[in-house]
Amino acid sequence: MRRFAFLIGLIFCLPLVTVGQQQEHASLNGFFGNSATAEQDWEQKFRAIPSPDNMKQYMQLLAARPHHVGSPYDKQNSEWLLGQFKKWGWDAHIETFQVLFPTPKERLVELVVPTHFVAKLEEPTVPGDPTSSQYAEQLPTYNAYSADGDVTAPLVYVNYGVPEDYEQLDRMGISVKGAIVIARYGHSWRGIKPKLAAQHGAIGCLIYSDPRDDGYYEGDVFPKGPYRPDEGVQRGSVMEMEIYPGDPLTPDVGATANAKRLTLKEAKTIEPIPVQPISYGDALPLLKALHGPVAPDGWRGALPITYHIGPGPAKVHLKLAFNWDLKPVRDVIAKLPGAVYPNEWVIRGNHYDAWVNGAQDPISGQVSLLEEARSMGELYKQGWRPKRTIIYCAWDGEEPALLGSTEWVEEHINELNTNAVAYVNSDSNGRGYLRAEGSHTLESLVNDVAKDVQDPEKNISVWQRLRFNRIAHAPNATDREKVESQKNLIIGDLGSGSDYSAFIDHAGVASIDYGFGGESGGGIYHSIYDDYYWYSHFGDPTEEYGRALAQMTGTTVMRLADADVVPFDFTGLDDALGRYMSELKKLAKTEGDEINEQNKELEEGVLAATSDPTKTYVPPVSQSPEPNLDFSAMDSAIANIRQSTQRYRAAFTKAEQTDASSASASFEAVNRALMQTERDLLSSEGLPGRPWYRNELYAPGIFTGYGVKTIPGVREAIEQKNWQQATEQIAIVAGVLQKEADAINAAASALESAAH
Amino acid sequence: MRRFAFLIGLIFCLPLVTVGQQQEHASLNGFFGNSATAEQDWEQKFRAIPSPDNMKQYMQLLAARPHHVGSPYDKQNSEWLLGQFKKWGWDAHIETFQVLFPTPKERLVELVVPTHFVAKLEEPTVPGDPTSSQYAEQLPTYNAYSADGDVTAPLVYVNYGVPEDYEQLDRMGISVKGAIVIARYGHSWRGIKPKLAAQHGAIGCLIYSDPRDDGYYEGDVFPKGPYRPDEGVQRGSVMEMEIYPGDPLTPDVGATANAKRLTLKEAKTIEPIPVQPISYGDALPLLKALHGPVAPDGWRGALPITYHIGPGPAKVHLKLAFNWDLKPVRDVIAKLPGAVYPNEWVIRGNHYDAWVNGAQDPISGQVSLLEEARSMGELYKQGWRPKRTIIYCAWDGEEPALLGSTEWVEEHINELNTNAVAYVNSDSNGRGYLRAEGSHTLESLVNDVAKDVQDPEKNISVWQRLRFNRIAHAPNATDREKVESQKNLIIGDLGSGSDYSAFIDHAGVASIDYGFGGESGGGIYHSIYDDYYWYSHFGDPTEEYGRALAQMTGTTVMRLADADVVPFDFTGLDDALGRYMSELKKLAKTEGDEINEQNKELEEGVLAATSDPTKTYVPPVSQSPEPNLDFSAMDSAIANIRQSTQRYRAAFTKAEQTDASSASASFEAVNRALMQTERDLLSSEGLPGRPWYRNELYAPGIFTGYGVKTIPGVREAIEQKNWQQATEQIAIVAGVLQKEADAINAAASALESAAH
Repeated sequence: MRRFAFLIGLIFCLPLVTVGQQQEHASLNGFFGNSATAEQDWEQKFRAIPSPDNMKQYMQLLAARPHHVGSPYDKQNSEWLLGQFKKWGWDAHIETFQVLFPTPKERLVELVVPTHFVAKLEEPTVPGDPTSSQYAEQLPTYNAYSADGDVTAPLVYVNYGVPEDYEQLDRMGISVKGAIVIARYGHSWRGIKPKLAAQHGAIGCLIYSDPRDDGYYEGDVFPKGPYRPDEGVQRGSVMEMEIYPGDPLTPDVGATANAKRLTLKEAKTIEPIPVQPISYGDALPLLKALHGPVAPDGWRGALPITYHIGPGPAKVHLKLAFNWDLKPVRDVIAKLPGAVYPNEWVIRGNHYDAWVNGAQDPISGQVSLLEEARSMGELYKQGWRPKRTIIYCAWDGEEPALLGSTEWVEEHINELNTNAVAYVNSDSNGRGYLRAEGSHTLESLVNDVAKDVQDPEKNISVWQRLRFNRIAHAPNATDREKVESQKNLIIGDLGSGSDYSAFIDHAGVASIDYGFGGESGGGIYHSIYDDYYWYSHFGDPTEEYGRALAQMTGTTVMRLADADVVPFDFTGLDDALGRYMSELKKLAKTEGDEINEQNKELEEGVLAATSDPTKTYVPPVSQSPEPNLDFSAMDSAIANIRQSTQRYRAAFTKAEQTDASSASASFEAVNRALMQTERDLLSSEGLPGRPWYRNELYAPGIFTGYGVKTIPGVREAIEQKNWQQATEQIAIVAGVLQKEADAINAAASALESAAH
Repeated sequence: MRRFAFLIGLIFCLPLVTVGQQQEHASLNGFFGNSATAEQDWEQKFRAIPSPDNMKQYMQLLAARPHHVGSPYDKQNSEWLLGQFKKWGWDAHIETFQVLFPTPKERLVELVVPTHFVAKLEEPTVPGDPTSSQYAEQLPTYNAYSADGDVTAPLVYVNYGVPEDYEQLDRMGISVKGAIVIARYGHSWRGIKPKLAAQHGAIGCLIYSDPRDDGYYEGDVFPKGPYRPDEGVQRGSVMEMEIYPGDPLTPDVGATANAKRLTLKEAKTIEPIPVQPISYGDALPLLKALHGPVAPDGWRGALPITYHIGPGPAKVHLKLAFNWDLKPVRDVIAKLPGAVYPNEWVIRGNHYDAWVNGAQDPISGQVSLLEEARSMGELYKQGWRPKRTIIYCAWDGEEPALLGSTEWVEEHINELNTNAVAYVNSDSNGRGYLRAEGSHTLESLVNDVAKDVQDPEKNISVWQRLRFNRIAHAPNATDREKVESQKNLIIGDLGSGSDYSAFIDHAGVASIDYGFGGESGGGIYHSIYDDYYWYSHFGDPTEEYGRALAQMTGTTVMRLADADVVPFDFTGLDDALGRYMSELKKLAKTEGDEINEQNKELEEGVLAATSDPTKTYVPPVSQSPEPNLDFSAMDSAIANIRQSTQRYRAAFTKAEQTDASSASASFEAVNRALMQTERDLLSSEGLPGRPWYRNELYAPGIFTGYGVKTIPGVREAIEQKNWQQATEQIAIVAGVLQKEADAINAAASALESAAH
């Protein structure tokens, strides 16, 4: 579902290891004595099994027809998936929820002033691409969870439609009140665009794909190249998932047949205004008909026009109506029982529903999940017995609103609270570099595994290639040395946009999200052209990165499932907290400096003196200064986390030295204590205005939607210059961090007892 | 002729003065006793005279018809100008040179593979714009000093065609050998593009105006807005002026009728390959027909295509032939005699020739010069008598190669060496902020004058508005504080692109170049649309910035002409040298770090590991490391300059305190010593490979053409990683700087004697 920005999200730091050197794992984190060697043998066997040819076949089958939520082919896929898991020896079933999923009844976008033009709103069949002609089964181009509406109003171009764009409009004296806005895709979760437009008084919203962002500016368009053609449209949900994801009618609980439901009116996550996505072919006549100020430099796309903002004279008529039906989502859930700790769950998921054929999104990840499951089934036949229970999940309904995973987590929240060790996710895949984002307690594990997986294009590990990439992109020698001097590649922080959200944000389950990419760009996201033809030409034609993903993800799952004690490493968490704190302090200072600066310039008349009298300029109002926020409570809780981390580390080293593997029975208490350290990152009140989001370390931004905000309660208060809320949130976060320090201490204590 | 990048070239630093406060000049730098008050009275009278209405009339007349070098209307303008100066009481004459100025006989650009397309190479008449229809008198679109040629070859897109672009092509394994390149305008003097193309083996060159740079991407196109329309073409010289400007056949000497001339073959500044400028309308079919790799992000313009590099399959036929005739250039030279120091010359110039009608370039500056001359004529009638001789120059032939000014300087080099105090230049003008670039001995004078000139749009001085602009654009509070804490606005360094070049670069005359701009953008540069219609709609419609330029420039001239001692301030020079030194050291370190970094990455295999195997990537070769360049000889010479600057300052303060104005006769020796300080910035050998450029502080870059390189001998050697040359140049520059320290000491000594 989510598009990943490679290189941006990846920050690397790593041990000083000679190029190409593969470490002999004398020891594996979490394994004692001989268990490490046995694990390595099984993992090596595992990694030899996944087959690119199988993955191609799965993809051809799963992406053969459109398979969105509620479609016949989605159902057919779920049944096929169920059969595969069973065939491979897994205990599998389908778990069904009933969710609100609107589909379009009527769609009309027309320019009515100064000329008449009716938008096509359709993606044409491409000769040579067989599945692009399955018109009858394709969902029309639309934004799910848009309001019904019939509005006619002047048009205003709002760039990406994010908060800074509205600030810019304010400076230019332009209001969107009573207007229909046209925003381009990108720089935010798409639901942010109509939400902010409505907050500023707009009555309708169009979202278009500018060729600057994923069309001809980026590269040749489909079918000559991988980028978005003239009439290609990005479908997608505009639900306000930054409030809560999942079924809008059943927040906090599983959307079972008999669940208590809100009425449509009561649901808080449906957009208040009509929203429609359009192609750049359809957008061009609309944008061309705008007058008013020339759009600022950063607002201009790649259409061959001068970008103007309006309002008008272009006037647009937008009419949308939807079927507001409940539809079934069918999660395919498959288990391999744990031999030692059956009530400790290692969960792995990837969705299988798509907007249309979805070869890349999500089938490129789903086929890796399937080969992992088949391979583990093989190992099981050969005698491998995971200590913990492994649960593989093929999620349905991710595209509309992370429906399948969110409802499942909400339905099983109590079991997860007790049993969940970790969740491992993937989604779309491609050629290039490993992307790993997740809980920093898993950072060390991710690094270890990445050293054991070969890059398909180069004769080095995926870890080494990632490291080299980071070195190659270091802006200077100092940054390069920083990359070289750190022990582990830093993994990214998780925002939202795929099925890990309910696990990490709501249930407090350590999560990780993997994918490869950076070499296979494209612009077919959520269009009918995301199909097998596209993927086999421009995605990962050999499926060798599909195999690498299966190896990376499967090895991670196995190591989590087989370890004597859950392989959490609090050093990664501690390092991350250090980074977040210095970022927060810097942010407060920067915001404070900017406020002071702007207030001073207003007072001196600098802004009035530097405006061009032939253009409208409305100076900003002065703002209250940053009150020198006091972070000491957080600092001291983090100091305690560092101490308890050191204590846990010492206990672990001692357990390793004394070969504690025979004491396995008594590790259960240690594992429970370790799981609790993740739960303790949750707060009871959740984040301001969105209590569903309970994790105090990671959340999608309230104004970004996809992009992560770390320590979001404090960070977003500072960003919004809400100093009182920042102070309140500092206290809440400090409390959570102190709880975390205590939880790590408890784990250390349990390990000291178990291995004494 | 040159286009100015506002805000980029402007760095401001200034005294802590309350907003809007106009300093009462108890004293003026260079004036002793009562002479300061008298000067202020005359200056105030002067600034009241220039009339925007007059300027509009001059512009309508001078830009009424095309008036390029050798055209009938250029001759007519020269005679009209002569008449005006005489009418206003100046001793004026026309000084004529005979220069090589090629004009086109034949021009053909056609795509021959894969389809046939013949470029129009013509700018259409625009309804409503009366002068755009003067087809018979317009110079066709062409690049002057291109070679004759008839070539057919595959096309390669080379971005701006500057050195880093060719490095990028090398990494992609693409050669331009035997090809015709197509480069876009911008990022260099246009002559650099064919020069580098030829050095890399290309046999022809097209230069086009991408709409990204001055067309619809920037704003509405003419006649709706000020930007370049579809078929608009930028004419212009491609002479290799970074070797020497002026007549190619008479380097170093004035191109008088009987001057000894090189043959065409011997001339070093004519491009070796055919070059033709084209519009984006003509470029589109050519660029669209290119295949090969997709151009890197920074290479992509605003045409609605995927930019490819080639080579081919597009094949182009380019056929050009020129008349290689000598043409007359007529400099109009007008003098007001100096009453006290007739042999000390203050020179002021602006060219009057254009590529076509040239309302903005150069008439917008010429009309200010004319109003200055008229106003000074008025003052003269009222009894004002400048101490020094003032020489006003309306230059001809600037557009092809700074012909009029260069030949005049070369012809009068000995007189200038003895007599020239300073040269004050202007060229195109517009609305907005003061731009001031020049010799840093004049920095303090420029700041003083800028405080006495009112901004036409705001109720503050142009100095204060410039300061506010710098504050408003300071990226952070630290930079803002830096701007606020410095005494003077730092003026820019002079590169090339207008008539100051021969004065500062060759003759060692302190120079300053003024203009206003930043609010009136446009894309009619060197096209038929740079005319009165355009300027009166989009340039400076009220001509109030024309008046501000006349006030700024005229006041500067008067203060230079009237001062008791030449108002040089070596503090500005000393500060500038400090900046240049730290830049050079940083540059050497950066280049060194980059070489080390790249060598290390090559050795470790980082670059090989991070290439995409589906794309060609040729790693760079390893380079010899930076040898830890020894700058100590320069540092110690600069320390001596600082000492002598302090000594001069002390002598000046003493002279002020003792009211030395009665001793005026004896200041002649001081003034001569001060003029010598500028001459002493020249070296006898000149810059490596281009001995015409003798100034060791400022020169246009050998690979940039317009853009300045300060301390160019050392800087360019470092940039080219030519460590031996860098070491040699450090010694030469250190010698020149020591000579400068001695010269300032001599001036101090003369002042001590004069005012004892």
